[in-house]
Amino acid sequence: MDRPVCVLGAGSWGTVVASLASGEVRLWARRRELADELNASHRNPRYTGELVLAEHVVATSSLEEACAGAAAVLVAVPSAGFRPVAIALDGLVATDAPVLSLTKGIERGSHATMTQVLRAYLPAASIGVLTGPNLAKELAQGMPAACVVALGDEAGARLVQDRLHGPSFRVYTTTDVVGCEVAGATKNVLAIAAGVSDGLGFGDNTRATIITRGLAEMGRLGVAMGAEALTFGGLAGVGDLVATCTSDRSRNRRVGIGLGRGATLAEAIASVGEVAEGVVSAEPLVALARDLGVELPICEQVAAMVAGTATPTEALATLAARPARGEWDVELLRDLRR
Amino acid sequence: MDRPVCVLGAGSWGTVVASLASGEVRLWARRRELADELNASHRNPRYTGELVLAEHVVATSSLEEACAGAAAVLVAVPSAGFRPVAIALDGLVATDAPVLSLTKGIERGSHATMTQVLRAYLPAASIGVLTGPNLAKELAQGMPAACVVALGDEAGARLVQDRLHGPSFRVYTTTDVVGCEVAGATKNVLAIAAGVSDGLGFGDNTRATIITRGLAEMGRLGVAMGAEALTFGGLAGVGDLVATCTSDRSRNRRVGIGLGRGATLAEAIASVGEVAEGVVSAEPLVALARDLGVELPICEQVAAMVAGTATPTEALATLAARPARGEWDVELLRDLRR
Repeated sequence: MDRPVCVLGAGSWGTVVASLASGEVRLWARRRELADELNASHRNPRYTGELVLAEHVVATSSLEEACAGAAAVLVAVPSAGFRPVAIALDGLVATDAPVLSLTKGIERGSHATMTQVLRAYLPAASIGVLTGPNLAKELAQGMPAACVVALGDEAGARLVQDRLHGPSFRVYTTTDVVGCEVAGATKNVLAIAAGVSDGLGFGDNTRATIITRGLAEMGRLGVAMGAEALTFGGLAGVGDLVATCTSDRSRNRRVGIGLGRGATLAEAIASVGEVAEGVVSAEPLVALARDLGVELPICEQVAAMVAGTATPTEALATLAARPARGEWDVELLRDLRR
Repeated sequence: MDRPVCVLGAGSWGTVVASLASGEVRLWARRRELADELNASHRNPRYTGELVLAEHVVATSSLEEACAGAAAVLVAVPSAGFRPVAIALDGLVATDAPVLSLTKGIERGSHATMTQVLRAYLPAASIGVLTGPNLAKELAQGMPAACVVALGDEAGARLVQDRLHGPSFRVYTTTDVVGCEVAGATKNVLAIAAGVSDGLGFGDNTRATIITRGLAEMGRLGVAMGAEALTFGGLAGVGDLVATCTSDRSRNRRVGIGLGRGATLAEAIASVGEVAEGVVSAEPLVALARDLGVELPICEQVAAMVAGTATPTEALATLAARPARGEWDVELLRDLRR
C-alpha cells in the first residue's frame, strides 16, 4: 500500500493537484466546513467548478492528519498565509518526505521565497517546488499540460513524478530549485505588466516584447541567486511566463488588464475574485532584487502601479524611454559563460 | 544628404519597414503596376491597409534603381522567390552596404538559410538579418514593438539601427546572425503546431508547453549551427516565437488552427491569403536538422501534417507518447557550458 500524498491548501491549484495524484491523497483545507463539503460532494465548486475528486482523495482540516505518514507534502497555500502553515508543519512531516512549494510568491517584509520559509522550520527536509505552465482551470478540464518538479534529492523528485505523471500531465524533473522558484514568483508580477499592455490596447508584438525583456529580468535575478540560466528557457521560465501573460484565465494578467483600462487596483482585484499573487509579490520582489543589486525595470513599474505611484501610461512611458543598445547586458553574458 | 535605404519586396513586411525608415527610402516592388500605385497613392492597400507611406519612400520596379547608392539593402522577398533576387543583386549593391534578410524561411531543395543564399552571390558584403516579434499589421498601426539587427559588422548594425529606430520601434543589435536566422525560420514552423493545438480546442497550458519545447528545438538546431544559446532567450527567439504562436494576426498560426479544426492544407492556406512561410519551410527545416543529426520532434510532426502523412490528432499523440525525463538533454547542457 502506497503512503499517501499530502496536499495543503484547497484553493483551485491545491484541489487540482490532489485530483491529479495517484494512490491515496490527503487534501488539507483550512476551514472544517470546506473539508466536510469536499468529503461529502467530492467537489470544490467555488474553486474548481465541475471537477470531481476521486474516492482516494480524502479532505481534512487537521494538519496532523493530513501529514501523517505522507510520502510527500505539497504546499499550495497563498504566500500571505504560508509562514504560519510552515511553522505548524514542524514535527508533523516524516523525515524522508520531500516538501514542495506550489506557491509562486515572495513574502512581504522578509523578502523570503517560499522554500526559504519552509527551510526555516523543516531544516532536515528535502525542500523543492512544483511549477510550470499550469493554469488550474485547464487542468481541471483535462487539457494536456506539463510541469517541473525541482528538488535537490533526485529520488524524491522521481517519487513525486511517479505520483503526479499521467496521460494529460507530463512531469519533468530538475535540481534547480532556486531557478524554478524565482521564475514562478517573477512571472506573476510580469503578467500584470502584460495585462496592462493589453488593457491599454497594445498588440501582440508589444506583449511579446514585455515577455522577452521580462524573461531577461527573471534570468538576471535568478542567476544572482544561484540559479541555472537554462531553467528560464524551460517550462518553469518561458513556459509558465507565456501561459500566464497570454491567458484570459490568468488572474494576474486580468488585474493588469483592469489597470490598463483605467480601473483602480481595488476594482481590478475585486473583478478577479481569487488572490493574484503578483499584486502581493511585486513590492517584495523588487526589494529582494535591490538587496542583490539587480535591476528589474518592468517589475519596478508594476510595483509602482500597485503602490499607486505610477499610472499605466506613465509606467510604459518610463520603460519606453530607456535607451536601446545591445540586446544583452555584458554582466549577464559574463555570468552565463562562467 | 543621407544615402537611401533600400527595401526589396513590397509585401506587408517590406512595406511596413519602408514606412519606419528615416531619410530617403527606395521600395522595390516586383510588379511595375504596384510600384506605380505606391508612388501615386502612397498606400499598399492589399498588404498594409490604411498605412500611408511618407513622401521620402519612393517605389520602383527596377532593382538597379532601388539599390543604386543605397546605404543598406533589406531583402523582404518570400523564401520561394529569394534566390532569383539574390542572383540579380550581384553588381548592384555598394561594397560598403550591409545586406539584411527580412525573410524567415529555409529554401526547399538546398536547405539553405536566406543569408547563405545571399552570401553565395554577394561574397564580399556584410550580410545579416532583421528579426523579432514584428507582426506587420500591428506596426502598420503604430503599436510599440522591438526588433534585433544581427550583423557581424557593428558599424553596419548601428547604421541600420539609426535609420530604423523610432519612438514606437526599438532596435537592438547583436552579432549572432546564425542564431537570429535559425530562430526566425523555426518559429514559423512551430507556430503551425501552436495553431493546431488551439484548433483542436486545447488550452493555454498546452500552447505554452509547445512554445517551450519548441524553443528547445530551436536552440538545439541553432547551437548545432554555431549560434549563441542566449539568442534564443531574446527578441529573435522567445519574443518572435511567442508573438507568432499567440497572435490572431499570425498567418502560420492561422494555418495551424485551420488544420486543427479539420480543414485540408489547401483550405487552411486559402483562408489566410498571403504566404505562410512555415508551410514552405517545414520540410527543408527538418531535412536540414537531420543533415546535422539534430532531433526536432515538434517540427517533424508539422512537416508530416503539411505533407499529409499525419493528422493533427496523430501528430499530437506521437508527441505525447514521448517519455518524460529530465527537462534538458545532456548534450544541450554540454554544448551550452562549452
